[in-house]
Amino acid sequence: MTHYRFADRMIHAPASFIDELFRVSGEPGVISFAGGLPDAALIDVEGIARAVAAVMEEEGRCALQYSTTDGYRPLREYIAARYRRRLGIPAEADDIQIVNGSQQCLDLMAKIFLNPGDVVGMERPGYLGAIEAFSLYEPEICTVPLDEEGPDLQAFAAMVRDRAPKFFYGIPNSQNPSGITYPEAARREIARLLDGTGTLFYEDDAFGDLFFDGRPREPVKKYLPEGAVLSGSFSKIVAPGMRIGWILAPQPVLRQFNAAKQAADLHSNFFCQVVLHRYLSGTDLDAHVRRVAGIYGERCRTMCDIIDDLLPPGTARTTPEGGMFLMVFLPPGVSSMDVFREGVRQGVAVLPGVPFYAGGGGEETIRLNFSNADETSIAEGMERLARVVRGLA
Amino acid sequence: MTHYRFADRMIHAPASFIDELFRVSGEPGVISFAGGLPDAALIDVEGIARAVAAVMEEEGRCALQYSTTDGYRPLREYIAARYRRRLGIPAEADDIQIVNGSQQCLDLMAKIFLNPGDVVGMERPGYLGAIEAFSLYEPEICTVPLDEEGPDLQAFAAMVRDRAPKFFYGIPNSQNPSGITYPEAARREIARLLDGTGTLFYEDDAFGDLFFDGRPREPVKKYLPEGAVLSGSFSKIVAPGMRIGWILAPQPVLRQFNAAKQAADLHSNFFCQVVLHRYLSGTDLDAHVRRVAGIYGERCRTMCDIIDDLLPPGTARTTPEGGMFLMVFLPPGVSSMDVFREGVRQGVAVLPGVPFYAGGGGEETIRLNFSNADETSIAEGMERLARVVRGLA
Repeated sequence: MTHYRFADRMIHAPASFIDELFRVSGEPGVISFAGGLPDAALIDVEGIARAVAAVMEEEGRCALQYSTTDGYRPLREYIAARYRRRLGIPAEADDIQIVNGSQQCLDLMAKIFLNPGDVVGMERPGYLGAIEAFSLYEPEICTVPLDEEGPDLQAFAAMVRDRAPKFFYGIPNSQNPSGITYPEAARREIARLLDGTGTLFYEDDAFGDLFFDGRPREPVKKYLPEGAVLSGSFSKIVAPGMRIGWILAPQPVLRQFNAAKQAADLHSNFFCQVVLHRYLSGTDLDAHVRRVAGIYGERCRTMCDIIDDLLPPGTARTTPEGGMFLMVFLPPGVSSMDVFREGVRQGVAVLPGVPFYAGGGGEETIRLNFSNADETSIAEGMERLARVVRGLA
Repeated sequence: MTHYRFADRMIHAPASFIDELFRVSGEPGVISFAGGLPDAALIDVEGIARAVAAVMEEEGRCALQYSTTDGYRPLREYIAARYRRRLGIPAEADDIQIVNGSQQCLDLMAKIFLNPGDVVGMERPGYLGAIEAFSLYEPEICTVPLDEEGPDLQAFAAMVRDRAPKFFYGIPNSQNPSGITYPEAARREIARLLDGTGTLFYEDDAFGDLFFDGRPREPVKKYLPEGAVLSGSFSKIVAPGMRIGWILAPQPVLRQFNAAKQAADLHSNFFCQVVLHRYLSGTDLDAHVRRVAGIYGERCRTMCDIIDDLLPPGTARTTPEGGMFLMVFLPPGVSSMDVFREGVRQGVAVLPGVPFYAGGGGEETIRLNFSNADETSIAEGMERLARVVRGLA
């Protein structure tokens, strides 16, 4: 019997709870709103196939060789130019590092900033993937309540003043899990509160392209150029399977981030970086994401309407302006774990909100994903869910 | 002026020394033996192009969606079957986790095993990428001298007994930087010494397919099934730009490794995993690597012959049986940094061995890469190097 002496940090490793949920959600006959996938039917497979063929024809050998840690320069130039044009942020290619989807930013930001016991700020509820990634660096995670007005600014100011977190991690655009978008005033106030404190704003913008009205929102980074890092991803707007994301950060942060990235895996998949750049050069990304966001918006409205019509009194929900998720607050006394278990029996899977509440809470919340089911499935699945909740209320 | 409060571990981040060397090595007119690239001219671009086209045609949508953390099952089955057939190791798909090249194994193994101050064993000289990856977890790196007989077994036994390292990291096949291959007796003895101690053997096998004689060597893992993990990579045998490697590990280790991988980046590039599997299904990988290894073998012999003929007395070198590197021991008093600087002036770049010696030493050693220059360049570059060393001796 071999004894394995794991590091203490692995005690903080996420339980397999979520994996188990996803497994159950995938059973035949179950309509799942539990996952977090974009709709694969909306991926521009033909356009990407053309780009792949052109790369293999013209520069396959180079695209298949090792490359540099920072990432394919033309791709970083594309990302920087898009920031300048869409959001008025003065980004250059040299301000950007390519990573394996924005999940890798979570790991590397934690790695370069967190000593064990350091304080990290987050929204409550907050993104589960971030809680999992940060936890392995053994910080103290402090949370600020999030509602439709954004993070509670009084609690936010007190946390920054009293606990001096290394950074506050937030998703101002169509947050995961809540679907909440910070109002503009909250963004400006957050920048004002952080300026000069030494607490960075770590702004995760996985969903900023998916506003149903097609209008970009100004990032906090714009008001706090040296005190914020901004991460993005092609997973929700082109294709998740390529695992290509990026971070835009001030130079001193980027240098440490680059060293950590090099030690972690030398560089991100170079072949897909070249393919992605080729694809983006020949496509109208803005038009593509407008179409995808439009479809997600219809699905979201269908889901919201059924919640309002069929769920029992005492139910509440968020009102997403974009993204892929909304959050339901069940009537008092209705447990999300009961809804999950009974839902699977009746053919609908939802994600209990508990794991999104670092430090506890959220027992009466569920997260619903509206991007990866068509209108018919949403109608049928939500009727099942309504039956389940009425049965438990 | 914004003040950034980085984690203490970043003090251990690698200096930019190596990046600087590589930059200089890439200047026009310089023949470089400093890098570590396989020869891109030997990548089967046509075969990969066919696989890519077939994947896009038949399963593009699925290959571009999110996937599971463990990796594409058919690819893991291929790897497991190859272990069974080539090396007689009873591996199954469920014993394997896909990663971003074997560099990511270094990061994740350190992450799941090392508390600050823990002892890690390594060869001296040892792989620089491993030193860099491990250092960010703040271990004490203890080294055992490596020569053509393998690691010094007396020192190895003493380290295991007195310091109880969490794991010993080694490259038994064509080690980087030395090119040394452990004799079989050393492998058996290492397994015997580690059995039941709680010190794992972390066996990095990036080069095991590249023996010039085409004969596989038995891994330590074979003699120590529960006490060793074995990492591999397609970077040197198919294409580095895809960044696909793997780890074969006992189940308790694999579970922690999988949790760390999920937190690090969810999963490796799924598109390339599917493409790679499609390519491997339609190609004779053994024949391909025999051809590549044969060519590298000729280049290695050319390089060795010139060293023996033209370098001044007092020079010594290793005798690789495979891989991509050999090590030169300069005549006493000749500094590798002087050889590097004067070499670049005279149009040849080498890598000083110093950064491979954790804890110091190696000032009179250089690493030479023979995989990424053709015979003509090797002849010309080695003549330049001989002139440089003779001038300094």
